This record gives sequence, C-alpha cells and structure tokens, in this order.
Amino acid sequence: MAGSSIGQRLVLTSFGESHGKCVGAVLDGCPAGLELDEKDVQVMLDYRKPGQSLVSTQRKEGDIVEILSGVFRGYTTGAPIAMIIWNKDQNSRDYEQLQTKMRPGHSDYPALVKYNGFNDYRGGGRFSGRLTATHVMGGAVARKLLRVALNVETHSYTTKIGRISMRDKFDLSMKEKIYANEVRCPDQNAAKRMRNAILDARKSGDTLGGIIESTTYNVPVGLGEPIFGSLESDISKAIYSIPSVKGVEFGSGFAGSELFGSQNNDPYVTRGGKITTKTNNAGGILGGLSNGMPIVMRVAFKPASSIAKRQSTVDIKTKKPVILQVQGRHDPCVVPRAPPVVDSLVSLVLADHALMGGFIKPVL
Amino acid sequence: MAGSSIGQRLVLTSFGESHGKCVGAVLDGCPAGLELDEKDVQVMLDYRKPGQSLVSTQRKEGDIVEILSGVFRGYTTGAPIAMIIWNKDQNSRDYEQLQTKMRPGHSDYPALVKYNGFNDYRGGGRFSGRLTATHVMGGAVARKLLRVALNVETHSYTTKIGRISMRDKFDLSMKEKIYANEVRCPDQNAAKRMRNAILDARKSGDTLGGIIESTTYNVPVGLGEPIFGSLESDISKAIYSIPSVKGVEFGSGFAGSELFGSQNNDPYVTRGGKITTKTNNAGGILGGLSNGMPIVMRVAFKPASSIAKRQSTVDIKTKKPVILQVQGRHDPCVVPRAPPVVDSLVSLVLADHALMGGFIKPVL
Amino acid sequence: MAGSSIGQRLVLTSFGESHGKCVGAVLDGCPAGLELDEKDVQVMLDYRKPGQSLVSTQRKEGDIVEILSGVFRGYTTGAPIAMIIWNKDQNSRDYEQLQTKMRPGHSDYPALVKYNGFNDYRGGGRFSGRLTATHVMGGAVARKLLRVALNVETHSYTTKIGRISMRDKFDLSMKEKIYANEVRCPDQNAAKRMRNAILDARKSGDTLGGIIESTTYNVPVGLGEPIFGSLESDISKAIYSIPSVKGVEFGSGFAGSELFGSQNNDPYVTRGGKITTKTNNAGGILGGLSNGMPIVMRVAFKPASSIAKRQSTVDIKTKKPVILQVQGRHDPCVVPRAPPVVDSLVSLVLADHALMGGFIKPVL
Amino acid sequence: MAGSSIGQRLVLTSFGESHGKCVGAVLDGCPAGLELDEKDVQVMLDYRKPGQSLVSTQRKEGDIVEILSGVFRGYTTGAPIAMIIWNKDQNSRDYEQLQTKMRPGHSDYPALVKYNGFNDYRGGGRFSGRLTATHVMGGAVARKLLRVALNVETHSYTTKIGRISMRDKFDLSMKEKIYANEVRCPDQNAAKRMRNAILDARKSGDTLGGIIESTTYNVPVGLGEPIFGSLESDISKAIYSIPSVKGVEFGSGFAGSELFGSQNNDPYVTRGGKITTKTNNAGGILGGLSNGMPIVMRVAFKPASSIAKRQSTVDIKTKKPVILQVQGRHDPCVVPRAPPVVDSLVSLVLADHALMGGFIKPVL
Repeated sequence: MAGSSIGQRLVLTSFGESHGKCVGAVLDGCPAGLELDEKDVQVMLDYRKPGQSLVSTQRKEGDIVEILSGVFRGYTTGAPIAMIIWNKDQNSRDYEQLQTKMRPGHSDYPALVKYNGFNDYRGGGRFSGRLTATHVMGGAVARKLLRVALNVETHSYTTKIGRISMRDKFDLSMKEKIYANEVRCPDQNAAKRMRNAILDARKSGDTLGGIIESTTYNVPVGLGEPIFGSLESDISKAIYSIPSVKGVEFGSGFAGSELFGSQNNDPYVTRGGKITTKTNNAGGILGGLSNGMPIVMRVAFKPASSIAKRQSTVDIKTKKPVILQVQGRHDPCVVPRAPPVVDSLVSLVLADHALMGGFIKPVL
Repeated sequence: MAGSSIGQRLVLTSFGESHGKCVGAVLDGCPAGLELDEKDVQVMLDYRKPGQSLVSTQRKEGDIVEILSGVFRGYTTGAPIAMIIWNKDQNSRDYEQLQTKMRPGHSDYPALVKYNGFNDYRGGGRFSGRLTATHVMGGAVARKLLRVALNVETHSYTTKIGRISMRDKFDLSMKEKIYANEVRCPDQNAAKRMRNAILDARKSGDTLGGIIESTTYNVPVGLGEPIFGSLESDISKAIYSIPSVKGVEFGSGFAGSELFGSQNNDPYVTRGGKITTKTNNAGGILGGLSNGMPIVMRVAFKPASSIAKRQSTVDIKTKKPVILQVQGRHDPCVVPRAPPVVDSLVSLVLADHALMGGFIKPVL
Repeated sequence: MAGSSIGQRLVLTSFGESHGKCVGAVLDGCPAGLELDEKDVQVMLDYRKPGQSLVSTQRKEGDIVEILSGVFRGYTTGAPIAMIIWNKDQNSRDYEQLQTKMRPGHSDYPALVKYNGFNDYRGGGRFSGRLTATHVMGGAVARKLLRVALNVETHSYTTKIGRISMRDKFDLSMKEKIYANEVRCPDQNAAKRMRNAILDARKSGDTLGGIIESTTYNVPVGLGEPIFGSLESDISKAIYSIPSVKGVEFGSGFAGSELFGSQNNDPYVTRGGKITTKTNNAGGILGGLSNGMPIVMRVAFKPASSIAKRQSTVDIKTKKPVILQVQGRHDPCVVPRAPPVVDSLVSLVLADHALMGGFIKPVL
Repeated sequence: MAGSSIGQRLVLTSFGESHGKCVGAVLDGCPAGLELDEKDVQVMLDYRKPGQSLVSTQRKEGDIVEILSGVFRGYTTGAPIAMIIWNKDQNSRDYEQLQTKMRPGHSDYPALVKYNGFNDYRGGGRFSGRLTATHVMGGAVARKLLRVALNVETHSYTTKIGRISMRDKFDLSMKEKIYANEVRCPDQNAAKRMRNAILDARKSGDTLGGIIESTTYNVPVGLGEPIFGSLESDISKAIYSIPSVKGVEFGSGFAGSELFGSQNNDPYVTRGGKITTKTNNAGGILGGLSNGMPIVMRVAFKPASSIAKRQSTVDIKTKKPVILQVQGRHDPCVVPRAPPVVDSLVSLVLADHALMGGFIKPVL
C-alpha cells in the first residue's frame, strides 16, 4: 500500500487536503449487517470539530459527513463504505507566504523537498490535522462494530495538558464525564486548570501539548498476532499517523522500565471463575496478544507547531534567515480535539484483528 | 500479511521457535549488487548472542548464521535472501510445568487461549525473545545496504537501566564506545553502575528493564509517506515487535509534551549553505517525513518477566492458585542484548522507505 | 487488503454501487508533477459510457468525472487522487423481482448467500459492470503517466464478436481506427459484420460475447518480479476483476500450447544494435518480466448474462422453479465498451511495476 | 510485498534457486490444530519430482522435504511453517555458456538486464521451474487444510499434450486414474498417445506443451470478494506464477465467448432441496464468488523452451548472432509434472479465501 491506507481485513483509505474540496475516507471490509447511518459517525466527528470553544481553532467547519456507498436500507452491505466531508471555511490566502518560508515544527520543508514543490502547501495540505477527520469517519464505524459485535468499549481522554495532570486513575464509571468539559478530562478540577493553562498559552501567542490515555474494555483474549502483527505494533502504527504525536506507551510504559520484574509482573488470579490479573502493568497486552485485561495506552502530543509568536526561520528560495509570523486560525492545543481520533484508530486496529482472528464474522 | 512479515518493498519474513529446530528469516526485495556474506550478518548477531557475560542468560548458542539463497559469487542477486540459525542448547524439560502454570508477564496465557493449546510453549515458542535473531539477520543486510548506498548510519545504545541513566547526550564520536562494555552504554561510568545494578538484581532473583536510544545519521530529506506511511508509524510498528517493549518515543517525546510550542519548535537555520535546524526536538521527523536531522528514538523495555523469585499464579487446568518458580536460564536484563535488534528494525524500515521513495535503486 | 483495492506502489481503491449515489476511485501513489485534469480521464470514460449506440445499453449516464483531491494548480501532488461520478439514470424498480428470483449467469445467488441478504442487489450492486468506470478513472491517470514518463502506449481493441474475427494482426498504424466504429475493431469490414451480429442478437433478445486484444508498446526490459510478482500474474489478476471475463492469455496462449518448442521459441536477433526477437510468441513477457517486445494479451468475455429472453430459474424463498424475464436496459454485448477498461487495468499494473522497479521516479 | 509471497491471510513465501543450496517455503497463517507431518507434503512433491520417467527431465533429485517450524507434536501451531528441500544433483557447468548466450524462450535476457548481471543464471536461477517445488510445499498443506476443514477436493490433470486431447469430461470417479500413467491424464487411451507424442518430440530434440484442467469440488457458496478479490483474479495470479503458463480460462472460457447468452447462462434448478445449476459454463464462479458448483479452470502451458535442437540467438557481449545448443537435462514436456503444482496453487488461494471469509476458523 502507498501510505494512505491502513489495515488488512478492515482497510481504511484516506483522501483529501486541508484546503482542497473535501476530506474523505473509504472503509473496506466492514461486515454486512451492521445498522449504520450518518448519525453514528457525526456524533464522533462533532467531538473533533473545530471552532467549538476557546481552547481550539476558530476555523468553523460544519464537518457534516455524507455516506456515499456501502449502506443500503440502513445496514452495511459488505461493500466499501465511502464517506465525505466537504471543506467550507478554508482561507487559503493566509498561507501564501508559506510557499517559501518554512514553518518550524511543520512538514513544510520535508514535504517541499520530497515533492519538489508540487505538494499542496495550503494549510499543511495532506499533512494537516484536518485529515484526522478521515480517521474518525472510519473509526466511528469500527467502534460501533466492536460495541455491537463484542461489547468492546474504547474511551480516550486527556490526562495531561502541559504540566497539569489528572489525579485519579480512569475507570469506566467516569466515561460520561469525559465530554463534560472542553478539554476532555474526566477529572473536572484538573480540567479547569488545564483550560486555564491553554487560555494563558493562547494569550501569549503560544501553544501547549499533553497526553491522552485510552482504555479499552471487554477485549477478548487472543487478539493480535505474534511478532510483526502484535497489537502494540498495529496500534502504535495507527496512532503515529496523527500529526503531533511523539510518544506511545502501553501499560506501565516508560515508568515501568524503572521497576523490578517482581514489581512489574501482573500475578494471575481467578475472580468469579475467570482468570484475570491483580495489576495491569502490561496494559492488557502480553506477547502482542490481548490478555483480557483493559488495553491501556498513552499518547504524547507535542505542543502545536503553529504559534502566533514571531519565529526565526529561513526562506527556501533565498536561503536567508527571515522572521515568520504564522497567520491563520490555529489550535492553542490540539489535545482536546484528539480523543475521538485516538478512539477511532484504536477501534480500527482492534476491529481489524477481531475480524482476522475470527472474533467477528463477515456477516453480523 | 499474516503477522510474520514486515515491510512493503523490502519484506522480512521470520520463522522458527525458541526450542524448535531453528530460527530463520527471508528478506525479499533487497537490491541486486550488494556485496554480502555471512560475516556481515554474524557481527551483529554476535552482539545479540546469549551467554556472553553475566548480565545476560547463560544459555549458550553459537548462533552461527548460514545464508541459504539470494547471494551469488559474493553479491546479492535480487532474489530473496534466506538465512538460518540452527538451535542447539535448548533445554525443554525446564518448561514442562508451563503447560498449565501461566507465567506472569509472559504470553503463555493469551497464547494458550488463542491457539487452544496447540502452540509450542517451550521457552515461549514463537513469542520468545530468541526470535529477535531473525530481526537481526534481516536488519544486518538492511543496515549494510543503507550504509553502502546512502552513507546512513544507525546506532543504538543503552541510556538507562532501572533507575540509572547515561549522563551525556549521544553523538557520533561515541559510537566506538557502545560495545566497549557489557551493557552497551557509551558512557563508561554509567555502564559500570548499570552492570552492578543488573548483577544485584540477578543475585536477588529479580530482573531490570531500561531504555535504549537509537540515532540515525545522514538520512536524506523526504523519506516516509504522509499519514499511515509515516516513518514514526512504521518504525514504532517494527520496534513493538520486540518482546518486552512497552514504550516508543521520538525526539523530545513524552517530555516534549510539557513544553510550550515556542520551546519545542526547532528553528530553521542555514549551515554551510544547507538548511538544518538549531535543535532537534522533532527527532528528525516532521509530518512523518525525515527532515535531514538525525532520527532519534527511545525504546522502553519492561524488566524481563522470567524472574527466579517465587510468584503466585493460577493453574489453568485446576483454576486454583499455585506458586510458580520459573526454571531455565534467563536474562536478568534483556536491554544489553537489544541494541543490535533496535538497529536492525530501524534499518529495515528506513531501507524499505528508501527503496519506495527512489532513494535506493533496485540494482546498486 | 479487503478486495476493493489493487496495486502495491500505485494503489487503486474502488467504491460505489450500480444504483447507489455514485461510483468513485482513489488512486494512491501517483508521482507528483504529472499534469492532470478531468479531461484526461473523461476522454477514456466517454469511450466506456453507456447509451452511445445501438450496440450498448440504453441507460444514459453523463458519466462526468470530478477530481476531488490530489491535484493542485494542474499537477498531481503525490497525494491520493480521489475521483467520483454521480449516478443519475438508475431505475431501480426494474430490479425488485431480483430479490428472490436469481438471474442465471449473475452474481445474485452467491452474493445473496455470502451477505445473507444485506447486499445491495439493485442493478447487481457492487458486482455491476458499472464499477468498471472506477477502473477507468484510475487507469486513465496510469495510462497518461506511462505515456509521459516512458512513452509506453497501450491499445486495446475488439478482435472477435461471437464467431466473427478480425482478419489482420494489429499494428501501431491501426490505432486511430479503433474508435472509428461502434464495436472498437480496427478492421472496418469485420467491424460492420460484428455490429450486425450484435444487432441480430439484440433483436432476438439474446447477447454475444467476444475477445479483446491488448498490445502495449515501448515497455522497458525488466518490469515485473519473478514468481508471484510476474507481469502475467498481476495483469491477469487485474483483468479478471472485469465482470464477464472468463479467459486471459498472453502471446501465443492456448494456441501456442499445440506447437513444438522449436516453433514457439522466439529467436533473438539484433536490429539497429538493439536486441529483439524475430517473433513474439511470448507476448513480450519471459519469466514474468517484460523483454522489450510488445506485451500482447487477449481477454475472453462471455456473452452478457442479462438476456431479454425468458429463462427458467428458481425462487430463493420458495425454492420452486420460476420463469424470469429480466427487465432493465442492458448491453446486448459488453465487449465494445470494454477496450478502455482493459487499457486501464493493463496501465495500472504496468505503472505499478514501473514505479516499483525504479523506471518511474516518485516525482516527475 | 516484493514478489516472492502470495496470499493475504494465508501467505506463502518462496525462496531458493535452481542451482543454489536449497529451495524453501514459509507458509504463514495456517490455522493451529491441523495434523501434519512431512508425509503429507512428500506425497505431492513426489508427483512433481524430476527423473521419474522418460517424459520428464533426467535430473535426479530426492526432493525430500523437511519441516523446520510451525509443527509441534504432530499438529500445526499457528506459527509459520517453514519447509526446505536441499538441492543435490545440480550440474552447473552445463550453464556457463548461458552467461552471454541468451536462450530463446527463457528469462535469461530480461533477467540479465533487470539485475545488471548479478542474477544467478545457473539453471535459470530464481526463474527455474524447480521453484514450483516451493508452491507444492505450501500447497500440500493448504490442500489438506481444505479437505479436513471443508471436505474440499482439488484435482488437476492433463487434458491435452500438443494436439492430442483427452476425450471425456472429467468427473470425480476418475480421480484415481490421474496418477495411473506418466502423463497424468485420466483417459488411459489418450495418455498412451500423449506419452508417445512426448517421446517423439524428445527424440527429435524438441518439446511439447499442453493443457491442464483443474476441478475443485465441494466449495462452499460465497468464497471470494467482489472486483479485485475475485476468485478468478486470485487463482489466475497464482497460476501465472508457474513458468511456461501462457493462458488461464474458467468454465466455458474462450470457447464460451462464441456462444449466445441464452446458451452460456447456467439455469438454476433445485436438486434435493439444494440450489444448483443445470450446466456449469461459469466454472463455479459468478461475480468473482464461488456459486457452489465445481470450480473448473484450464491452464495452457507453452512447449518447454529448453530444446536440444540448435537455435540461433545473439551473444549479449558481442551483440553478434551465434548458434546455441542447450546442454543440461531438460523436460521434453513440463505438463506431466505440473498437476500437483496447479493443485497447490488453487488450494492456496481457496484456503486463503476460506480463512478470510470465515469458512475456516483460526484454530481447527
């Protein structure tokens, strides 16, 4: 495959650019018989949508999805599901200076070299965070499929913005609180402080990064394949397709590498006749396979590269230093818009493996 | 693909089990005309080999590689390069209790469920760290290819064992010092303390984890594809195929998520007429593409799961709690053996992208 | 991949149904820098378009293609090229009886079983010949790419309708005559007789099949890969995606299997300092690789399954025999509309291999 | 994938060369729990083995297969099954002249150009028919899997040698007669005449081609995917990986293209409460999907290119005409050795689709 597709049995293909006509997705391999309409997808897109609050970009996009194929009389048919969102509020004039002035932290420079100047640079073109809407289109279907077929539930939420962390460990009882605030942190106190930190950064023309955690419940034992088809391999590959992601860890992750084996191993116990583990340092994955415990992953987002502050850079034509002031409407922090994207990618990978492993049948 | 292969234009297929006849690899898509013999591969295998020092397992394996195909009169032919190592010192009796007693931290339990008991459980079977020898077989070829064709150099080294960290930032001048000690840390003082920490853990029947960093120099600008073919996606997918890996980050990674955008962005400057960046928080990758700066990645390894200490677990047949004492010869810390594995996987991904992107031709 | 995509470095993904909203295609991996607009695609779509003459279906579709992404300021950008045609003249009421009465020769029955009734059966749904418009969308781009980058020219033309064959062997001087008649046969005399045969079949409520030959000129030596990546493997895989195709042969093909080796071998000769062969029984492919001679392939199309005559079949619900009379507007012979489809698929495969083999660069 | 692998869920990777150390195969994705040992594979290899009779090459190879991985205590484990045959009777001196004198009909010339002379040319190297032993290694496993899991039976047999055809239509009652003669034709009278034709050709230093038909029984309805995943697409791709194949047709094939639709359509009928068709012109495949009728395919083999007769060709160094007399031991007709190869490739494709479609589970 050439880079715009992911998955083996359930394949998502993404197309479109930030300031082109549209962004779209084709999801091939979804089982027939899943009840589906635009609302199932729209609800997740709305959580990702720009222009909703002060913590995100002021670009206003309706982001209304249209299903073009693969659904007949309210059910999926087994044929590829094409979905599209027409772009509306792009303002490309803001970007003309970017043809030659390379924005630090963005793909501008390597993309210009790679495509010898033929790439659509407006708003980052193909490299824009706007393309994560295509992840959500496909991911919303995968997430519903997992829920309907296997009762699997994925929840992603902000656990850190800049240096401000959520206190408590997430559990399923908090799921309704995730979208109760603008930053998508189920700890409402932390959420307030995170919001303030973002607004402060915004005021000073700067941006913040953060961490999103994702927990998936009810995953059957045995999803994944040894070695190159490990769940961690495929989930991290998917997650790193999100712009700004610079770190992915599972279970105890980087912190776990400081522990002794006797501390980090999760002892097996039986509970209600079922085998489970006392702790979950493994994050639900052993040897690349799901072990029945919740799959826990954390994603590090760098602070958004588009800052309002003046930055020094070079002009690619003159090869001389210049001062750049990025125009356009940008996110002071992309983290609050990312939980549905993380949900989507985790769901796509798990659904793909559930299909390959025979956990979900080709017709529901 | 079904899980035992990785890559698109340069494809590595792995086979074998820890206590089977052999472990082997088939590398398809290597350009014709690369000078190659067993020594090129053996040198990297030797760095990974067990039984070399007190910090690793006492299982003794010659690990002598034999090239079976794809090389003719000292040069690659363009045909798949099959390589094999015959297993010698396996001692399978140690593992009989593992049929029913699930080792915490290992793949035993999910593998047993997934394969309904048909999997070869001896020494972890297909899930054993021994299979990383197959990564090295393919990776040694990819690494040489990158060096010969593009002068690309990958170096991986231990930066942390347990809580002991390397002090200095790695630079190319240190490359000769990596293998000058048993723990593969170019900082010799830290190396000594790391070694002691491992021996202490060993003595108490415990294990340690750690961090390996990998830096790749001279990568041309523009390797990688947007979105799902990002270098970070493909590198992390490869790295997570190593047993015990629980975290992967690039550039400033998790720490970078605490910074402001104005701190984390890497300003462009010209140096000797060439465009480069002042800092390298991006770890050499922007928008999924190489930007010409060194590619910097860190990998978190959990402490090895096979500890000599007694552990509580359950017997899968009786579903009752039992005490397990793992027999066999195991690594008190797998980190020191992993740098050639990380080198290999990074090289495989970069060579694959270099071929796809036209940076390396199908015949040298 | 899940069945709706083809290619490795140049990947075509098809979506849509005969009576859905649209049919569309995403072409990923096209090099940046190819001059491209809708006209390049429309000209080939027009040759395939229904409703143009008495020898094809009377369904009228404008079949106007719209490029949605991947082209910026008149040139391809390297991003996926999404293209769409909105369906207009579908008349789905004709198909209601098909929910239970299985049409002989069509996919109705296996599709109903496979998808347990969830498939969109209207007009054949996903299995309709209408989907070959998506092959042409992608193929028109591939064909232009091959012409611009390598001067490769593919021409496909009707050589047989029913029992009426073209007399002469095709050569490049005839290329302008292919589209000079409704049946797309460069031999104008044969074309007349073929047209009459189709009209006769139509009058009697019946249909005809035939043969299309495809010849590709100026293919460089060495495209293709040994064994599973042979040009014949990949071309035949692509061609068999066309509904109604039941045979594919290269060079002397089935007839060649009756010859002696001494007759069928193509002796090498030099001509103008260049190595070539006296004859071309190999059809330009040896060992799966192009040998520099024209690639010659023939495709057998069965007579169209939708006949106006009454047919006996079974009702899937009652499992009783019934008489079926297929309504709707159908092609008395699909062969005249297929040459641009064959051109497209051959071009897609050759362009894919040209990119993989380094014959075309990622940026023109 | 880079050309040496085929399949998606069940993936065969082939390695080795005609005069190298070995030929081998890795089959990944085979379900766990299939009883398997070397004998299951050997029996099919023996049917393909050279040196068995006057109608095939006199090169003697034991062709004893060794299973290297993926089988534990007599059952498949779900891990990749690596298999190997060590080459023994190669006689490479015969081939030295071939470095410069291009054999007509062989891959010598395009391979030399493609690999710039680095390819192993001895005995055709990677392009040799000897590599079909790797198809049989994987195919024998797939064939057993289909039989055990689904009662699917594939039988391939010679129906034509040169101009001599088998009389009767094959049916299942003839299956025991296929290997009752050297040419593998179940019609014993035709077999005798075919044998004589081959011996005559051999005596005159010439070779013959022919046709193999393959029929597969008990295929469930609904294997295959629409468009690019059609059974015909995937079977023909696999079959064209066999050297010397120049034509593939299904059902009525090329002959069917001369019929009217009313003649070629297969009317549905019920038989014993089951839906079936009166005739089988579709060859068991409609819309790319199996329809429950036997899958019938025919394969055209060109006459073997290695003839003992003197041939004119060119010397690649001098670019001057030369006379070539091919040395070595060659098949006067490769068709009699090919039925197990065709069986194998059909089985691999059907098993792959059976796994993807959920007809066979990941653990038996």
